[in-house]
This record gives sequence, structure tokens and C-alpha cells, in this order.
Amino acid sequence: MTDLKEGVCLSAFWYSHEQCCWTSNETTFDDRDKCPQWQKWSELLVNQSEGASAYILNYFLYILWALCFAFLAVSLVRVFAPYACGSGIPEIKTILSGFIIRGYLGKWTLLIKTVTLVLVVSSGLSLGKEGPLVHVACCCGNFFSSLFSKYSKNEGKRREVLSAAAAAGVSVAFGAPIGGVLFSLEEVSYYFPLKTLWRSFFAALVAAFTLRSINPFGNSRLVLFYVEYHTPWYMAELFPFILLGVFGGLWGTLFIRCNIAWCRRRKTTRLGKYPVLEVIVITAITAIIAYPNPYTRRSTSELISELFNDCGALESSQLCDYINDPNMTRPVDDIPDRPAGPGVYTAMWQLALALVFKIVITIFTFGMKIPSGLFIPSMAVGAMAGRMVGIGVEQLAYHHHDWIIFRNWCRPGADCVTPGLYAMVGAAACLGGVTRMTVSLVVIMFELTGGLEYIVPLMAAAVTSKWVADAFGKEGIYEAHIHLNGYPFLDVKDEFTHRTLATDVMRPRRGEAPLSVLTQDSMTVEDVETLIKETDYNGFPVVVSKDSERLIGFAQRRELILAIKNARQRQDGVVSNSIVYFTEDPPELPPNSPHPLKLRRILNLSPFTVTDHTPMETVVDIFRKLGLRQCLVTRSGRLLGIITKKDVLRHMAQMANQDPESIMFN
Amino acid sequence: MTDLKEGVCLSAFWYSHEQCCWTSNETTFDDRDKCPQWQKWSELLVNQSEGASAYILNYFLYILWALCFAFLAVSLVRVFAPYACGSGIPEIKTILSGFIIRGYLGKWTLLIKTVTLVLVVSSGLSLGKEGPLVHVACCCGNFFSSLFSKYSKNEGKRREVLSAAAAAGVSVAFGAPIGGVLFSLEEVSYYFPLKTLWRSFFAALVAAFTLRSINPFGNSRLVLFYVEYHTPWYMAELFPFILLGVFGGLWGTLFIRCNIAWCRRRKTTRLGKYPVLEVIVITAITAIIAYPNPYTRRSTSELISELFNDCGALESSQLCDYINDPNMTRPVDDIPDRPAGPGVYTAMWQLALALVFKIVITIFTFGMKIPSGLFIPSMAVGAMAGRMVGIGVEQLAYHHHDWIIFRNWCRPGADCVTPGLYAMVGAAACLGGVTRMTVSLVVIMFELTGGLEYIVPLMAAAVTSKWVADAFGKEGIYEAHIHLNGYPFLDVKDEFTHRTLATDVMRPRRGEAPLSVLTQDSMTVEDVETLIKETDYNGFPVVVSKDSERLIGFAQRRELILAIKNARQRQDGVVSNSIVYFTEDPPELPPNSPHPLKLRRILNLSPFTVTDHTPMETVVDIFRKLGLRQCLVTRSGRLLGIITKKDVLRHMAQMANQDPESIMFN
Repeated sequence: MTDLKEGVCLSAFWYSHEQCCWTSNETTFDDRDKCPQWQKWSELLVNQSEGASAYILNYFLYILWALCFAFLAVSLVRVFAPYACGSGIPEIKTILSGFIIRGYLGKWTLLIKTVTLVLVVSSGLSLGKEGPLVHVACCCGNFFSSLFSKYSKNEGKRREVLSAAAAAGVSVAFGAPIGGVLFSLEEVSYYFPLKTLWRSFFAALVAAFTLRSINPFGNSRLVLFYVEYHTPWYMAELFPFILLGVFGGLWGTLFIRCNIAWCRRRKTTRLGKYPVLEVIVITAITAIIAYPNPYTRRSTSELISELFNDCGALESSQLCDYINDPNMTRPVDDIPDRPAGPGVYTAMWQLALALVFKIVITIFTFGMKIPSGLFIPSMAVGAMAGRMVGIGVEQLAYHHHDWIIFRNWCRPGADCVTPGLYAMVGAAACLGGVTRMTVSLVVIMFELTGGLEYIVPLMAAAVTSKWVADAFGKEGIYEAHIHLNGYPFLDVKDEFTHRTLATDVMRPRRGEAPLSVLTQDSMTVEDVETLIKETDYNGFPVVVSKDSERLIGFAQRRELILAIKNARQRQDGVVSNSIVYFTEDPPELPPNSPHPLKLRRILNLSPFTVTDHTPMETVVDIFRKLGLRQCLVTRSGRLLGIITKKDVLRHMAQMANQDPESIMFN
Repeated sequence: MTDLKEGVCLSAFWYSHEQCCWTSNETTFDDRDKCPQWQKWSELLVNQSEGASAYILNYFLYILWALCFAFLAVSLVRVFAPYACGSGIPEIKTILSGFIIRGYLGKWTLLIKTVTLVLVVSSGLSLGKEGPLVHVACCCGNFFSSLFSKYSKNEGKRREVLSAAAAAGVSVAFGAPIGGVLFSLEEVSYYFPLKTLWRSFFAALVAAFTLRSINPFGNSRLVLFYVEYHTPWYMAELFPFILLGVFGGLWGTLFIRCNIAWCRRRKTTRLGKYPVLEVIVITAITAIIAYPNPYTRRSTSELISELFNDCGALESSQLCDYINDPNMTRPVDDIPDRPAGPGVYTAMWQLALALVFKIVITIFTFGMKIPSGLFIPSMAVGAMAGRMVGIGVEQLAYHHHDWIIFRNWCRPGADCVTPGLYAMVGAAACLGGVTRMTVSLVVIMFELTGGLEYIVPLMAAAVTSKWVADAFGKEGIYEAHIHLNGYPFLDVKDEFTHRTLATDVMRPRRGEAPLSVLTQDSMTVEDVETLIKETDYNGFPVVVSKDSERLIGFAQRRELILAIKNARQRQDGVVSNSIVYFTEDPPELPPNSPHPLKLRRILNLSPFTVTDHTPMETVVDIFRKLGLRQCLVTRSGRLLGIITKKDVLRHMAQMANQDPESIMFN
């Protein structure tokens, strides 16, 4: 569908340009892009392939197709599955941390996201399919786990399935099974026991294996931009690699700041009311600017693939237009550094323009009401910058091989600089700057290259990029979006080092109304119903009596309502002034009192408690590690208060000198 | 020193055979092993290089050197640092789970383990340096963290440093920085927050980078057995790969069972009293049997390196003695499958003998009182089996290329089977069977090869191997040794699914003496001292009074002793019948009573509590995730009992139908 924007295959309209020309046997290797079956729109419609009018017709149809795809996508999302928009990773992180967003992983989301993802990628917008694929995989995981009662009934087990699904999603998106597992561990999952590691690994294995059997690119590789380099790197090259890391960090900071500012504006102003119009406008701008530049016209993953590539002898790309020494006999794999030809210089300024365009447009694209991933645009930005730096270093080394820094490793006639490697390092740095991934990033990049050798450059760039970006703000793009949307997410990465105690955080505060509690054997059904009606708490602590307040358990609101409703319908003698009791034996009642209602069954006898002297550092740790939603505060068994996850989040914001009310909750 | 067993370099005695011949310019590529500077002992001593007497002299000196090295090593370990023996990984796992083994990571251990590791590897024993290197790295980590008070005073921070050190150790041992991080995560560490992931990653990066700068093998690779393959694998090959996985699982089971049986015998019989003699005997047996077989005579890592290698055109190894078609023009990287020559058949039975020998001798070697790692011997076993299977499949495919299974992918003249790849898959399977690593194993193996392509075969073998081995017993070798040594280690991998409650596990049981507690304001100094003297508990719960038993805190034994000692020395008026109080204000005392002692300072006001109705599943989870050593059991604030980590371990053993007394504690 991406190629449909430019032309059509006469032998079968669903073939891409490349597939169309595979079937043609007439073409030589150099002309593999030109074959009679593939016709540009101008050739087909007005029988012209060159000239201004043909160009304008093609340009116009390119924009028209892009708008069609984008309009269809945004309409489908709006009408059928509003949750299908965005990358989905911030929400999945939140879901895995224990929050429930109903329908987010539903069947409609799965279906619509899959379809619209194809449309938006084809429309040429500056977005990728990788993030949304993680969401799609999680929807599948959720669907399958709903089929088995072992998983559908146990929220924890279901989350383990989702962690494994996220790993499988990345495994398929990047052809990087190990990278996928690490991505799930580092970025997506909240609680990741070793058992899950092993199962995610298995899921990722099967995913990669299935993908390889399908062989989507016809080269028995899992991804389009698989590369192999043949030259080692040299110590002196670490300097440009670290520079690329700095660039990646700066790009990450710029992107996150601008994107969040724009998204906040979208949320708070009238802009947010016209999502379809917004998508149409951005698509039109993208298509209009993208078409004239060959590096933005094609799909972004093809661009990345070309930028990563090492220039072999048979390469026909403009980026490989070097001036060859005609006297040289060249083995295919070992071409020395050569002076750049005019094609390379043309490519350089086109790349520079493409880079600026990509940087700006991506900021406005991510966050629109369509599925949109960030990996591919970030990698493209980094790859363009990296390739330019790489060509620069290469030409510098060629023309000045007598400089001290080059003298040791770059004699004339040696193949010492691989610009494609710089592109890859740049891509890693930019992706790292935006997402703050480290280990998973390096593993993914290194599953993309054949190159274990290049692990040190990649690591150096990833580390630098993270440091630089962290210096400007700790939040990666996903955390920033979680924050923006006000999800109650307790980040495992933040450290809490303040010396406050549980008693400072628990509610009721001084002067507030006392905690709403149930007593174990002195409240009537009506009292309980009133309490339920007047409050909206998720549950109520049960104490011995209002006087002693010794805690005996915790009752869920939902279960209380259900139990009382059932009892009123089925149990004879349960009326409004029946006594509700949570003890083993019924309390002694005056004669003629109505039949009491026993609710011990729904009482949680082991609610989580801490003492009022517990340091908040410990409380935060407990909330994180045990995934609690609330925790009761006692002193010598006497109930003093309650701390909920939202209280913890508010307290953490307060301690970090943020306005606690800035933490909105949906 | 390994080569010193066979001969000596005349130009510099500290050169290895290979280094010695590098300096010689006279030799051609084929004769690189023969150069005048390198002299076998027989050449040097009796001026004979061939013949029976020369052979016997060399054989004798080989054994003698091996014995010298081994004797020196075991003596050094016995005299200076008994903790330097073994691989150290089981102990490091235990230490990271919160148990303290004093001196285990000390400076003497570091020094002696480093020196003796060189000696035992040179002695030719069937052991590797990889596991001990993790211990050495952790000793370094411990040493450095003792220099900074931030780390030396905080046990948790120190453990994070140790996790990162373990990652750096594996990074250096295998030249696999990412594999190292994952190894630390999967095998070594107990609690591995994301912060540690990122720091381990950095440590591993620096380690790999430093190693690369040193360039130990002169090939700018980080390890001796780095390989690159040039042929893809075919779907039909999955069958032999899975078979290798089965073999790996069986080997793992056999090894663990036999090794544990032998180690238990060593622990319980007189055998354990003669560790030096045992090392001498095993070394002698190893040297005697190893020398005649070329595949066991050389060092094990060289053997693995040769087995992993693909047979290029220039390969002089016996394993590459194929019959070449003289009419064929062969590019270096694309040699078709060829019939095996006599050298290959000789190699096959020599490998078979070597395999049996390695399997048997490794069982007796691992666990002796010398530093000994398991990675290299396990990989060697797998590589030998794998290479044999690979050559078998290759010859089958060559001679029967008309069979249906071969017809599709192995036409005559094609290069379809890479025996080296089988060796690598076999090595991964065997290592997986012994250690039960999964993700880290695949990453390590794949950092060793240039081959991302081979990730599916490696994963398939690792998964099969783990399944097969797990079917016979859940414990990997490290857990088995932890169990054997009776360390209190609560495995995060075990699932606890029984429906017991905290009340079933807590002590005192019914009929036992009541819990030893302190009261908040009614015991005298003498009472407390008696309690401390009569019991050996680590700490005592503090309750309001013997009657009400409402819990107010927990006091550490060590701090109690210290506080009372200090008070008696420095505080006037504190005598044996002074009242000890833990409340804010002193209790009301009758006139003329001695000055009371306030100990609120040492009272932990937020001891960890659960109710008696808490399911043990939750309790086990809390112990694991929060790394507790004990937990108090209450009901409505009244203290009922205590659960310690050892109680939990005993209960888990009981539930798994093991004898709880089999869990010994050192």
C-alpha cells in the first residue's frame, strides 16, 4: 500500500514495487527498480513518465492516497475503537502495574488497531508500527488468557501473559527475540519474575520462528534492515560515536518536551475537539513536504535500511556514489575508503533537509488519534544524523590520512570507516534518548546487525544518550505520557529517599472525619448500606468495635454489596435492621431481634498492615514490590488509618516539590 | 603455563606455543605450529623429537607439571583461603539473597583464587575459569564497596554492587557483556531492580571495553572461541538440534545427580579428610588419560574453539580433512559439502573417547578443594557431541542427497551443513542442562558467534534441554550445591501453591513453650540478660505486658547486648534490678527503686507482621520480595508467634514431601 501511492503493478495490483519487479526476468541487477510491469500513476493514466505535468500528477495522487489512508484510519479509530490510538505502551505499563482500563485490550481494539496500523504506515506519516505491535500482541495475549479460567480469573497470571505478549510483539517487530524479552523486562513490565522471563523467552522464540517461516522479506532475515559490516571499528571512532550519543540525548529531550507540550495543548484547548481534521492536516503537510525529497518519499523503514547499509560494489544507491579507482581490483567485501562523488554530496543536503523535517513532523504526529509508534521515526532521525557524521568522518580520514588521529588506523587504501555503522549508532542513540532504554536497546540493535563487535560503540552511544537525556529530565517518553494522562503509576525506577513516616501520609489526617469502618458485630444491614451509599471507597476495614478499633480484617465494597443483595433476596429473615457480623459465632442478641447476617466469608482476614512508625521508604517499597492498592496503618493492633496507592503517589509528588494536584487521576 | 606441560619456548620461556611461533618468520601458514624456537621437552632434554622414548619422556613430564600445578594450587587454597575453592556461584547466590558468609568475598580469597585459578587451569584438569571469575569479580566489588561508606554501611547497596560485579565477571569470561548482565539477572542475583540492570550494564561495558583494549588473543575478539558461519540453517536441521537439546538435558541430569552424590559422599565419609590427596589423584588420572588423545591433551578452550570452527579452505585441523574435488574452484567462504577423509574418521573416534572421558572426570572434578568452573567442561561435552552429530548429518546429506528430507535443501555441490554450528548448539544445550539458564545462555552463545541467525536453533536447543532436565529434577547445579551445603536460600523460582496458613507454620507450635518476648516496661536488666543467655534468637518481640501480649516492636539481640553493656558501664544507677522500658515515658516506679534503663532507641517500631490467617503463599511471596529474615504473626494486634526464613524453608520442604530435617543449616 505504501507503493500504491506512487504507482501500480500491472500483473497484480497488490504487489509492491519490489515484488512486482521480482517476477520480471528481463531486468538486470542494476535496473531492478525499473520493470515494465510497474507503472507510475502518470504512466498509467496519461502515458507520461517524465516531465513536469507527469510529476505534478504523481505528486497530487501521492497526496491523495495518503489522505485517503489517513482519513480511513482516523475514522475507523474514532467510530469503532477509541483505545486503538497511540502506541499503547504507556497504557500497557500502567495496566501491568495493577491498574485496570476496561476494554483497552479488547477484541475491537485488536481488530481496528491492526487494520488502521496498516493504513497509517502506508499513508507515509512519520510513525512506526513497532509500538502499536506491542499493543496488538497484548490484545492477543489478553484474548487468549480470557479463554482459560486459570488466567482469566487471576489478575496476576494474566499480567504475566501480557508481559510475554509484549516480548513477542517486539520480537516480531524487530526480529529481535532476545531484545523483545529485555524490552518487556526493562520498559513494559512492572513485576517480572524469573518464571515470566523464561515464558517470555519461549513466546518470543515461537514468534521469531513463525516470522522466519513466513519469510516476509524474501531474504530469510526477520527484518528489513538487517545488515552485516565487514570492517572493525577503531578506538578513535569512539569520539564521533559519543557525539552521536550526545545528539541522541538532546533529540530525546527536545522531542519529549515539545511533544508533551503539544499533547497538553491538545488536551486543554479546542484543538483536541477536531482529531480527524488534525490527522488530515498533518498527513497533507507530511505528504506535501515528503514527496520532493527521495529520502522522505519512501517508507521510513526502507530509508533506515538504506542508511544502515554498507556500500558494496554492486550498490546502486546515491549514497554509494563514490569515485572508484579504475586500477583497483576490488573483492566484494573489502572496498577501501574512496572520495565521495557528486551523488554523495547531493544525498548529504537532501538528508539534512529530511532530518529537519522528520524532527519537526514527528513531534506533531506522535499522540494523534491514530496508532503511532515512535521507534522507527526516532531511529530514522538518528540514522540520518549518523550517516552524515559517518560520511564526514570517512571523507576527513580519506583526505587527511596524515593527521595524527588517522595515521594509526587509516592508511590510504584501507577500508577504515563504515558510514552505515555510524547510522546504526545514531539510531540507537536517538531511540535511547527518547525511550531511555539501555540494555534492551543495545540487544535489539545488535540483533539487527550481524555485529557483536559493535556492541561497545552501541553501548557507549546508548549510555551517553541516556546520561545526556537524564540530565535534562528523568522521564522517558512513556513515563511522560503516563504522567500527562494521569494514570496511577508507581514507577519502579524512582528512588524514594525522604524520611517521612507512614503516619504523615495516612488518612484521615488531623482534623479530618474519622475513617469509615465496619464493626465486627454491632452494625445493622441498614448501617452498612448507608455507609456504602455515602462513600465511594473500594473497601472498608473491619474493627472489633468503634471504641477499641482493633483491626480484624478488610471487606471489599463490591463483595459487600453483592452479599447483602443476595442475602436480602434469598435468606429469610434478613431485614434492614438485622445485625451484620463478621465473627465466627453470632453475637448474643436480645430476644425477638431479626435473624442476623453472617459475612465472615467475604472478610479478608489478612489485610496488609504497617505500623504508623514505618518509614515511607519502606511503605513505597512494599507498594511497589507487592503491587498493593491499599495498606492499613495500625499501632499495636489498633487501626489508625489507611494509605492508598494514590496517597503514595501524591506524597511522592509533594516530596519532589511538585504540586500533588498535578497528579490527576482519570 | 598450559603449554609449559609440553615444551618450552627458547626465545622466552613465558611465551605460549602460539606466541613463540608468531615471532618466527620462517614458518609458512601450514607449519605455524612448528618452529625452531619451540622445543618439546624431549627435544630440549635428550635431543629427540620422535620415537617411543621421547614420547614417554614427554608423557612423564606432562604428568609431572600437571601434578606440580595442582599440588601448588590445592596447598595454597588450604593454607591461605579455604573459601577460594569451587566456583563460588552457589555462595554468591546465597549472599545476594541476604545471608552473610564472613570472609567469603575477602581480599585473601581474591588473591589466592586468582593465583590458583591460573594453576588449576594450566594443570589440565577438567574445569573452567568462568565461574571462579565471577567470584573473583565479586571479591573486587566487595573490596571497592568497602572503600565507600555509602556502600559499606548499607547491605542492600553492597549487594547491588555485587550483582554488577557478577555481570562484569561473565562479561570478561565470555566476552559477552549483555550475556553477563543477563547471567547476573537470571542466575546470580536475588533482587534485581532496574537500577541495577542499568549499572550492571555499565560495568559490563567497561569490562568488555578494557578487555578489548588489552586484546588478549591478538585477533581483536574478546574470546578465544569467536566464530562466524557463512551458511544459513534449514528447517529440517531443527530435528538434530532438538536431539542435541535432549542430550544436553540428559547430561545435565546425569551430571547433577552423580556430582551431588559424590560431593555428599565427600562430606559424609573419610574422603573429605584428604582434599590434597584427592586433587593429586584426580590430576594424575586426568593427565594420564588425557595425554594420548589429542582432543583432551590441549586446553579445553582451544578444543572448544576448534570444534566450533567452520572448515575453511586453509584449515589444517584433522577435523577438516575432507576429500576435495580437484576440479572445483573454491571461493574461501563457500565450500560445498564434501566426503570425509580418513582424518575425520580418526577424529570421530578420538572425540567419542574424549567425550566419555570428559563426562566421567568432570563429575569427580567439580567440587574439589580448588577453584573450578563448570561452563567450559559442560560446553566441551556438548561441543564434542554436537560436532559428531554435525559430521554425521553432513555425511548423510552428502551421500544420500536424494532422500526426501535432504532433497529440498541439500543439492550436490551445496554447502548445506555446518558441523561447527552443531557443536555450538550442543555446547549451549549441555550448559543449559547443567545450569538451567535460558535467556542468558542464548545471549552468551550468540555473543560468541557472529550469528544472529542461529538464535532459533540455539533457543530450540536451550528450551529442549531445560525441559528434559527439569523433567528429572527442578534443581540446577548451583541450587543443588546450595541445598547440599544447607545454605538458607529461598529460591525465587519455586512456586508455592499449597493452601496452608501462617498459623500452621509459625512457632511456638501447640505444646511448645511460649515465645520468648520482652515486655515494654516490666522486666529488669537481669531478666533481659537471662533471656539473652538462655536463648540464641536473633531478636525478641516487645509486647505491652505478658497478659495482653499486644505487639509494640522488635529488638535485635545484638543491639540489646550492646545497649545494656554500655549502660552498665556509663550510666550511673543502672544495676541488675533496674527496670528496662521501651516506652516514651518511664513507668511509674515505687520509691527507692533503681534508675530505670530506656531502650526505645533500639526498638524497631515497624516490625513486619502478618495475621495468622495469611495464606503461606502470600507469606512466601513477602519473604522473597522483601528479603525478610523473620516476620511476626499477630491477630488483632496480639502477638501469636514468629516465622523465620528457616521455618519457611522447612515448611516448603515438608510440603514438597521432603524430610524437613534434610535442610541442614550451617
